[in-house]
Amino acid sequence: MIHTLRTLFTFSLALLLMIYTSPAYAQNPQQYPTLILTPDGVAAIKATLGNAPLLTSSFQETKQSTDALMSAGINVHMPKDAGGGFTHEQHKRNYKAMHQAGILFQVTGEDKYLQYVKNMLNAYAKLYPTLGLHPERKEQSPGKLFWQSLNDCVWLVYTIQAYDAVKGQLSQQEIQNIEKNLFYPAARFLSEESAETFDKIHNHGTWAVAAVGMTGYVLNDKKLVQQALYGLDEKGTGGFMAQLDQLFSPDGYYTEGPYYQRYALMPFVVFAQAIANNEPQRKIFSYRDNILLKAINTALQLTYDMKFFPFNDALKEKDLRSVELVYGTNIAYAHTQDKRLLSIAEKQGEVILSAEGVQVAKALDNKEVQPFNFTSMELRDGAKGNEGAVGVLRSGIQDKDEALVMKYSSQGMGHGHFDKLTWLFYDNGSEIIQDYGAARYLNVEAKYGGHYLPENKTWAKQTVSHNTVLVNEQSHFGGNYDLGMKSFPTSRFFDVSNKDVQVMSAEIKEVYPGVNFTRTMAMLRDEAFDNPIILDVFEINAKDSQQQYDLPLYYQGQLINTNFDVQNNSSQLKAVGQKNGYEHLWQVAQGKLPAGTVQVTWLNGDRFYTYSTIGSENAEMLFTRIGANDPNFNLRNEPGLMLRKKGNAGQTVFVSVLEPHGEFNAKDEYTTQASSQIKSLRLQEQDGAKIIWIETMNGDLRAFTLATNPAVKSKHNIKTQSGKLNWVGPYHYFKLKK
Amino acid sequence: MIHTLRTLFTFSLALLLMIYTSPAYAQNPQQYPTLILTPDGVAAIKATLGNAPLLTSSFQETKQSTDALMSAGINVHMPKDAGGGFTHEQHKRNYKAMHQAGILFQVTGEDKYLQYVKNMLNAYAKLYPTLGLHPERKEQSPGKLFWQSLNDCVWLVYTIQAYDAVKGQLSQQEIQNIEKNLFYPAARFLSEESAETFDKIHNHGTWAVAAVGMTGYVLNDKKLVQQALYGLDEKGTGGFMAQLDQLFSPDGYYTEGPYYQRYALMPFVVFAQAIANNEPQRKIFSYRDNILLKAINTALQLTYDMKFFPFNDALKEKDLRSVELVYGTNIAYAHTQDKRLLSIAEKQGEVILSAEGVQVAKALDNKEVQPFNFTSMELRDGAKGNEGAVGVLRSGIQDKDEALVMKYSSQGMGHGHFDKLTWLFYDNGSEIIQDYGAARYLNVEAKYGGHYLPENKTWAKQTVSHNTVLVNEQSHFGGNYDLGMKSFPTSRFFDVSNKDVQVMSAEIKEVYPGVNFTRTMAMLRDEAFDNPIILDVFEINAKDSQQQYDLPLYYQGQLINTNFDVQNNSSQLKAVGQKNGYEHLWQVAQGKLPAGTVQVTWLNGDRFYTYSTIGSENAEMLFTRIGANDPNFNLRNEPGLMLRKKGNAGQTVFVSVLEPHGEFNAKDEYTTQASSQIKSLRLQEQDGAKIIWIETMNGDLRAFTLATNPAVKSKHNIKTQSGKLNWVGPYHYFKLKK
Repeated sequence: MIHTLRTLFTFSLALLLMIYTSPAYAQNPQQYPTLILTPDGVAAIKATLGNAPLLTSSFQETKQSTDALMSAGINVHMPKDAGGGFTHEQHKRNYKAMHQAGILFQVTGEDKYLQYVKNMLNAYAKLYPTLGLHPERKEQSPGKLFWQSLNDCVWLVYTIQAYDAVKGQLSQQEIQNIEKNLFYPAARFLSEESAETFDKIHNHGTWAVAAVGMTGYVLNDKKLVQQALYGLDEKGTGGFMAQLDQLFSPDGYYTEGPYYQRYALMPFVVFAQAIANNEPQRKIFSYRDNILLKAINTALQLTYDMKFFPFNDALKEKDLRSVELVYGTNIAYAHTQDKRLLSIAEKQGEVILSAEGVQVAKALDNKEVQPFNFTSMELRDGAKGNEGAVGVLRSGIQDKDEALVMKYSSQGMGHGHFDKLTWLFYDNGSEIIQDYGAARYLNVEAKYGGHYLPENKTWAKQTVSHNTVLVNEQSHFGGNYDLGMKSFPTSRFFDVSNKDVQVMSAEIKEVYPGVNFTRTMAMLRDEAFDNPIILDVFEINAKDSQQQYDLPLYYQGQLINTNFDVQNNSSQLKAVGQKNGYEHLWQVAQGKLPAGTVQVTWLNGDRFYTYSTIGSENAEMLFTRIGANDPNFNLRNEPGLMLRKKGNAGQTVFVSVLEPHGEFNAKDEYTTQASSQIKSLRLQEQDGAKIIWIETMNGDLRAFTLATNPAVKSKHNIKTQSGKLNWVGPYHYFKLKK
Repeated sequence: MIHTLRTLFTFSLALLLMIYTSPAYAQNPQQYPTLILTPDGVAAIKATLGNAPLLTSSFQETKQSTDALMSAGINVHMPKDAGGGFTHEQHKRNYKAMHQAGILFQVTGEDKYLQYVKNMLNAYAKLYPTLGLHPERKEQSPGKLFWQSLNDCVWLVYTIQAYDAVKGQLSQQEIQNIEKNLFYPAARFLSEESAETFDKIHNHGTWAVAAVGMTGYVLNDKKLVQQALYGLDEKGTGGFMAQLDQLFSPDGYYTEGPYYQRYALMPFVVFAQAIANNEPQRKIFSYRDNILLKAINTALQLTYDMKFFPFNDALKEKDLRSVELVYGTNIAYAHTQDKRLLSIAEKQGEVILSAEGVQVAKALDNKEVQPFNFTSMELRDGAKGNEGAVGVLRSGIQDKDEALVMKYSSQGMGHGHFDKLTWLFYDNGSEIIQDYGAARYLNVEAKYGGHYLPENKTWAKQTVSHNTVLVNEQSHFGGNYDLGMKSFPTSRFFDVSNKDVQVMSAEIKEVYPGVNFTRTMAMLRDEAFDNPIILDVFEINAKDSQQQYDLPLYYQGQLINTNFDVQNNSSQLKAVGQKNGYEHLWQVAQGKLPAGTVQVTWLNGDRFYTYSTIGSENAEMLFTRIGANDPNFNLRNEPGLMLRKKGNAGQTVFVSVLEPHGEFNAKDEYTTQASSQIKSLRLQEQDGAKIIWIETMNGDLRAFTLATNPAVKSKHNIKTQSGKLNWVGPYHYFKLKK
């Protein structure tokens, strides 16, 4: 009875409110919440709790963590600290707590959650008008509650959802106070007063428009929504729709790379779901040929064993369990019913508390899960798809299968690295050839306040920290960002039609003045080898002669042996060079390379890896370790190789094979195939083609041919001592003996 | 019908055979097999297959691996290669295949398994008489099939079980051929002809007596059994019973340490089970107050998250999933019905194919599993328990709880390290303070033939690779093995009666001439800290003044920050020293220690660790990395600290606290308590006691008092500025404020 009265009361208040705010979207208290959680979602959660285990456990975890946060009371402090500091973390805890308490109020109806959200919002409504810019503000885009406005946007995305969940229960006075003193000023600060960020086609802009647009829905303010969708001037040059058009490639690739694709996805997905709930007629998830669903799928594809490929600025500890992808996977499932998404959700081990999360949890409970379709694919970069690409070759869909990534995408804006045509390789559940990722300890104040470390610029962004060629110890484009942003690699071909011979090739011109690169990488499954091998053909074409070419290789594992003499700098280490990142590499050892096949073998986990390449006059191999000139112990001290050749004019080619082999079985104490199967690796150039000869210990003979002309229909007939090689197209893999 | 006839036929043959060999133990074909697998076991397996999942999967894995091994045919080659080489691995595969095929024959009755074992045994019977010592023989104890007789023993332990499984089906001629040409010569070679090893009180001796004794049972040769039990002269100075008396301490600790305890257990457990099956009246498992069951339990206790504490020569990749502990756990369960063992078996994920394995699998299927009782304990070393001990303190029984190990045991024979009073620490599922273990890549031929590497001697065994004090850059006992073997630490006290204040203390005299060490370590659970902290008080008492004292600390993780100035050797690294292992440490950085509290913080996984100690005049901290003077890349390049003080005469004390704190949450992007709670750490000496003062950031004040006199009943009353400290016994932990 009391409950009914209260409902009636708040209903009347809400009606008054609707008149007061001249609502743009038909709403009444029964229609709150309206953003992600909806009345239907609340009903679905109530009906499903206790049945679908993943929903139940997610709900219980939310309840536990909320109750723990609430037990500390209301702590709304004057902003003071930078990222990782106390007030920073406290305001983060606050929005998390409010957001969760809002959901819990909707689901349980418990008054304590309502009171908590209300009290916290009132506290913020009191604090907010007193705030200037944050004392520790970042130069470019200062926030008020946090050091950067980006954090303020995130705060608002969550806090507006909390408000959304309780608004139906508030008095008109309360509503007026909270909206006038908190949400309107916050929305204004993040739009008009941060105009540059708001209208920027950039993930920070997406957080801003999502925050403001979602606020618009809850405040029934049509203008805020329109600005969020079409920019401050509502003309469509800025805003969410322009971001959807420009921030993803036609393949749903986000130019900053997987780590920021994950991050960027959150406001896209959350705001889109809010749009879908409030203005379904916009069919936002179908927009631009389902670009958001593509973007979610692409984020999932850009991983190995749940971990994101860490190229560009990326923290390796992030994986698909992150909240952004829980939202992404749940919402994508709700829109597609693609049961392969359930296998990701299962590993995430939680669902969002909404109608979408309920669907996922129920489907998993019904055992509808199917394996995710990890697959070889080329993901084009650039809004029009013409700014290079990321190529991914996979030997299968299992967690322990091989994955080869070649990065021939564009610079990737401010978080991009100078790493043209670099590669990464995973096998047997582990990172084998690594990309260093970013130098940063997020939220660790002792580490440069949690910012990107100075070494991110001096090491992680530099070319030498990547598995690609450097000319004269310089980074690509001389490390010049503007130059980097102007230049894109081109995909020459990407052919995965034969699952046993998957090949990709890309080129880029003028990486250095007068120097062009072409790289072709293949994943070859062949009965002559334990596992698919990786072939790498890196061509440098230089107008003039150069001092030297370096090709680093950052392997992960313990070096086992080499088949050539190595001089170890046993008693004294010096850095490999003086600048461009070389100053961060200790030169542990070096060896002149004899002519012929040169091999380095290492052990990673229970498998051996041999890197075979071709020695030549004046070529040498350096053995390096990261960590020189690192006064604050900011870098990970990991090993690397560096293949060094003289920088002759004309064409120089690095040919190499990475071969996973054998087993080191500690449990049962046996070792198999601890040495390479490759007896020799040779490069022959003849009749406009390169022939890479691979001879095995068992007497197998293989030839990988690579035509200069990448045309699909070009015909090639080459006579060699081992027989005629006839093929059509840019390449062929011949099995000549056995 | 045919089956019956065959049974009758082989039965008659066996009767003839029994007359021929004048059997010592009443047997007939129905009683084979008689060692581990028994007719009852076979029946139990048959009855349980398909019901208990762990038995079924273990059976299927055995079948798959055996079928795969058998598909390669019979490959009995002339011995040629050292450990890890082809013939070495092939003979290992052979005994594994025969052993498994024998079991499969018993369970399935399939003829192909019988034929395979028979053919392989015939091939060995042909080869064996032609063998001299192995061409790659090890100096001390050469084998015939393998480079060392130890491997020949293991081969025989498995092969005799294969023969045991098929003997009932063989003709008299076959039996005569195999026993005369293979088993008798092999048993003779491993006993009389390797007399020194056979009679040695050492794990190699145990493998020898197990092999010979088990052969005795199957060949019905009483003399072989008697020699195995009581030594070649059957007088009991050598042999299994003497080994049971002398190789384990009264607490079931094996002096070589956990890694070799695991290895040593196998022949003990297997031979004991064979004895139990053949001569139950010996009550072998009850012998010496259940010493074997104690030894199994001790091996399980000496682990963290399934991994053995890796002190002394130990390969870290070994864990409780190793076959020795599968046997150990299964057989111990059969003898004790201790359901806590089932939790280990569950993680092992397999059972042995015998009556014992069936019991475990059935109990697991019945959900009878209980958590294993990992507990704080002091494990005495030495046959009489008076040669020091290993102390283990645990904060709980979960995988992620803390475990602190202090090693004050004896030298541990040839695999021992010069590491008196060293410690190891685990927390949050990870190794935090490491023992390097051994320098060896077992079975990797490219790494020094799979032997212990030269760096095992120059680095891993040296004191400087451990977390204990060195005087004048010398290893303990000057690195002299004989001196090390003569000297044992003494336990001063080990008190875990209060689970919140667990303390252990040990001392050793004359580690260096005129230098004695005392170390006291405590695990303190206190509401002032996130997690239990570790207190370490290391006292050096020197008759004369020394050049310097070094206390290394090998932490695992990424260094975050220090609270004092550190000079990084950014552009050039040199080794810390020239010998005794110092030549393997790069000196990455160093810092003079200011007076007062000195702190170093690192991150391991999602938790921070701060090591706090006390600075003083002439004290400094070195920051090291393993890997100098390592021409073949044999060492792991891991970080360390080294606390260095002047070596004054009289008493010098190192006081430090290791404090696990905070959380680095990558998924949800927050960091809590990234800095230490310890504001100050002070040492006060007064009235015959040391008082370690700990003051926290929150204003808590704690005092840990340590009396010079460790007597349990000694009374102490000390007046301090912070109040009176009254206590009884060797130590007390006072909470003085908050």
